[in-house]
Amino acid sequence: MYSIELYRKEFLTYLGQKSIDKEPSRLYEPINYILRLGGKRLRPVLTLMTTELFGTDYKKAMDAALAIEVFHNFSLIHDDIMDDAPLRRGQKTVHEKWDLNTGILSGDAMLILAYQFFENYPSEIFRALAMLFSKTALEVCEGQQYDMDFETRDDVTVPEYLHMIEYKTAVLVAAAMKMGGIIAGASLKDQNLIYDFGKNLGIAFQLQDDYLDAFGDPESFGKQVGGDIIENKKTILYLSALQLGNAGEQKEILDLYSIQPQDVSDKVNSVKGIFLSTGAAKHTKSEIQNYTQKAFEVLDVIDMSEEKKAVLKQFGENLMMRKV
Amino acid sequence: MYSIELYRKEFLTYLGQKSIDKEPSRLYEPINYILRLGGKRLRPVLTLMTTELFGTDYKKAMDAALAIEVFHNFSLIHDDIMDDAPLRRGQKTVHEKWDLNTGILSGDAMLILAYQFFENYPSEIFRALAMLFSKTALEVCEGQQYDMDFETRDDVTVPEYLHMIEYKTAVLVAAAMKMGGIIAGASLKDQNLIYDFGKNLGIAFQLQDDYLDAFGDPESFGKQVGGDIIENKKTILYLSALQLGNAGEQKEILDLYSIQPQDVSDKVNSVKGIFLSTGAAKHTKSEIQNYTQKAFEVLDVIDMSEEKKAVLKQFGENLMMRKV
Repeated sequence: MYSIELYRKEFLTYLGQKSIDKEPSRLYEPINYILRLGGKRLRPVLTLMTTELFGTDYKKAMDAALAIEVFHNFSLIHDDIMDDAPLRRGQKTVHEKWDLNTGILSGDAMLILAYQFFENYPSEIFRALAMLFSKTALEVCEGQQYDMDFETRDDVTVPEYLHMIEYKTAVLVAAAMKMGGIIAGASLKDQNLIYDFGKNLGIAFQLQDDYLDAFGDPESFGKQVGGDIIENKKTILYLSALQLGNAGEQKEILDLYSIQPQDVSDKVNSVKGIFLSTGAAKHTKSEIQNYTQKAFEVLDVIDMSEEKKAVLKQFGENLMMRKV
Repeated sequence: MYSIELYRKEFLTYLGQKSIDKEPSRLYEPINYILRLGGKRLRPVLTLMTTELFGTDYKKAMDAALAIEVFHNFSLIHDDIMDDAPLRRGQKTVHEKWDLNTGILSGDAMLILAYQFFENYPSEIFRALAMLFSKTALEVCEGQQYDMDFETRDDVTVPEYLHMIEYKTAVLVAAAMKMGGIIAGASLKDQNLIYDFGKNLGIAFQLQDDYLDAFGDPESFGKQVGGDIIENKKTILYLSALQLGNAGEQKEILDLYSIQPQDVSDKVNSVKGIFLSTGAAKHTKSEIQNYTQKAFEVLDVIDMSEEKKAVLKQFGENLMMRKV
């Protein structure tokens, strides 16, 4: 019961059956390609788990889980174009493997396909799922726009950053969980509580991502430690350092973020030093703790057995203990 | 009653009230921009007209009409990127006025917004509208993919071309009309009949577009006559000429379509000569007549007063008599 591994396995089996064998192949091949690149499948797994926690067979949530995963991968295709990214999960991005037009159009088709997966539910549930999905998808677009806006702005604040990651990342995790509540017929109150659980955990997850990028263990961290620093990304660490640092530290980090040296290790070490000396690292850790705590507080009021609450808490703790 | 001008005016008023004043402005400004560039507003007008022809106040169809128009403009933004088009209705395209990323993301947001306009209908109607919309939107993507595939293929047949324009253009006209039937609670049979009316008229409309591009009156035609020929576009005229011409004519048109001369008028005149000598022009006119006739045959069996059928017939005839 409530086994993440089982949900993932079942979801992957279902996904495998849904390979699209339709013309024009140039439209559908990239869709099959990106959906099979791998990934943790965190969001669809959450939909399945939440459905079962609210007392309904998780198999009923397969199509909603698929919609969430297809939407997530749509956003990856279009984001990779916007970020000019050559690789995704170690493989070529869609616009690199094919071309820009393929990336745009196959992405568009995926956004529509996501809606179509809801058609397998009765009208009232269809409506609730589609409305939540539209609201969420629009917020994800807004989050992506804020993220791009921030690249050229030098006055981004920490609250603005938190709002951006809430929209770009956390609301989809939240919606994935709320969909389980909708399918299981949970009360509106519990639907909104599980949404808040997912949202706060999603924010904590993204802040953890920022933290590990700088302070993760090079041995276990999957990517290059310091990648965000090398790319001058305005993460929570950077924004907190600017906010908390003295005039000297502020000037130093602004200078370091204005250069792109050949040898990056000096830059990475200097910036990490400032993240520590300004208290930005500590502040980030406390924000992660803060959002995780907010998520867990939901469990005090949600209508669910203690045993099931423990499943959600364990899930949250595992996510926050991760090293990668 | 049933005044196209009234529907257009009312729709434009409604559209004007829906200007999106939300953050991030970089996401929503391009949406307001493209929706105010003008255009015939043919599709939303058809939704309003069909609703009233089926006996329901056209005002009830405003949100569905808006969804159709927002989707149409989403497809224009993304198509203009894919076609590298600098101008749309005499004004800068979104990706030219802003940039590629803005075009992609604002387009994505419009596709989602289109779905949201259906939320103002009761569950059963919401479901019917959203399902028709998803099916149609996916077909439009498929049509656009076929159109791009055809650019690099030299074995495109006339039936393939007809299938492409059906998907890229006609199904949205058809869906716009069927939505009126859904909102008015017309029988499923009549919903499907009005869909067929719109689809066949939409195909005839697009073929007429091809024809006028070569043989329109330069005095009254809005664009440069011969534009498709200059761009070596594989229209129904070109494909019919290849199919109907003798070996010499086939070779000549293939040669002419392989060059991009400085002075284009010789090329345009030579190609038009072949369109005439091969019978491609005549064949195209007869296909236009054929699809218009197919649309009108629907009127023999649809459950509607003779007076209302006359409105649809008049509309179709006006569309086919147009010079621009």
